[in-house]
Amino acid sequence: MFEDAKTWFEHLRDRLVEKIQSYESQAFVEKKWSHHEKGGGLMTKINGNIIEKGGINISTVSGKFNEKMQEKILGAKDDPSFSATGISVVLHPRSPHIPSMHFNTRFLSTTKTWFGGGMDLTPCLNFENETKDFHKKLKIICDEFDINCYEKYKKWCDDYFFLKHRNEPRGVGGIFFDHVFTSTPENDFEFVKNVGRFFLEHSCNLIDKFKDETWTDHQKEIQLIKRGRYVEFNLLYDRGTKFGLETGGNTEAILMSMPPQAYWK
Amino acid sequence: MFEDAKTWFEHLRDRLVEKIQSYESQAFVEKKWSHHEKGGGLMTKINGNIIEKGGINISTVSGKFNEKMQEKILGAKDDPSFSATGISVVLHPRSPHIPSMHFNTRFLSTTKTWFGGGMDLTPCLNFENETKDFHKKLKIICDEFDINCYEKYKKWCDDYFFLKHRNEPRGVGGIFFDHVFTSTPENDFEFVKNVGRFFLEHSCNLIDKFKDETWTDHQKEIQLIKRGRYVEFNLLYDRGTKFGLETGGNTEAILMSMPPQAYWK
Repeated sequence: MFEDAKTWFEHLRDRLVEKIQSYESQAFVEKKWSHHEKGGGLMTKINGNIIEKGGINISTVSGKFNEKMQEKILGAKDDPSFSATGISVVLHPRSPHIPSMHFNTRFLSTTKTWFGGGMDLTPCLNFENETKDFHKKLKIICDEFDINCYEKYKKWCDDYFFLKHRNEPRGVGGIFFDHVFTSTPENDFEFVKNVGRFFLEHSCNLIDKFKDETWTDHQKEIQLIKRGRYVEFNLLYDRGTKFGLETGGNTEAILMSMPPQAYWK
Repeated sequence: MFEDAKTWFEHLRDRLVEKIQSYESQAFVEKKWSHHEKGGGLMTKINGNIIEKGGINISTVSGKFNEKMQEKILGAKDDPSFSATGISVVLHPRSPHIPSMHFNTRFLSTTKTWFGGGMDLTPCLNFENETKDFHKKLKIICDEFDINCYEKYKKWCDDYFFLKHRNEPRGVGGIFFDHVFTSTPENDFEFVKNVGRFFLEHSCNLIDKFKDETWTDHQKEIQLIKRGRYVEFNLLYDRGTKFGLETGGNTEAILMSMPPQAYWK
């Protein structure tokens, strides 16, 4: 299933690139990166008119967890070997009407194998109706596989994307999941595919809905300040960012999630 | 000496405000903050035409160190009580020709008392000659009190203001010091005063030298990217920022050091 997952992530990346490219006159840029021991990946980036900064990163890595990680990671207690493949996407639109959109899914293999991932939105202007719609649709996707998982995944997302020092959430949440075990591995994979398909469709719908709407300087300023919070979250709290930078990961790939511009008053 | 130190920091703040105000049509804004147990401070902020974002924070706090801190802090082993007063200044000029300028000095009192602090510059364009001049002058100030301290303080600054994940320094360094013990406490104080006077004078000299020089869009972009590095340093590495945010300090005062705008490509 590792290869199948990787192939799906690449397929999803290609479809995302194709869709986003249809809005933009600028081209995506590809950048390969590799680590002598751990593996490597491919970043696909765009600086466009609609998506001011967007990045899609597929990475496939393997190695051995250290003792501390062995304790934490499912199925790694007796054997520290792991391999992982995943796709991570961050889209920072130019328009303050369109939220920043974040998505990732991954497949992990130790003595056990499982999927994890999530998606969430960070709007900066009023987004109440769109938020309700977003969560309603996420619930439908979750309910198809497990009638109880939506609330859990939503809470996990809310708990994770929270700026303690500001006492405020990063955005309007979404879902955040790990150790996906539905009825069968095939169904787990199907769930992850549905999450990916939904991200693609929903992101494009939001772009379509708002892309022609103009904005004021004041709305732009609100967006830049909100992006400052995004930066604060990623550098102060995000586990992937901190872990990646501390363990000598690829800085450019790790910081792909940073917004293009941010502002502190 | 605690009260004398505090009075000096306030005097220095007033002179800094007066000098910077002379360049600007916008006024400084004052904001008091206080913590029910720990103490409080006064932030003095400006968003001006020359200093796009500048903040001066004077804080005076007291309390008891936790056990972990007790081990680390001079004179706190047998008694965790401490009090501290300090001034911290960050100036982010609008012009990419003028470096971001950072300065702080503090007086700490446990069972021992001592001064600490530092100052450093973060230019974004060629600054070779100005860097030499800056370090030459810092050396003269240090040499007056201890012929050997400059190299040590300079190295301390270089080691501290380094972005490991980028393998690059934040700026062109300066001095960084703690546990200042020259011949007498009065001389320690005089050293700290001289560092403060020099920051005031040197910052104004740099502003005067470059304030009328125009810049290109490309130079501005270089500045915004450099400011992104400044943000990364402050949120990923700066001990004061991390300690302050983790221990529930005043977020606005702690993040006063953030640049007004930053950019990630």
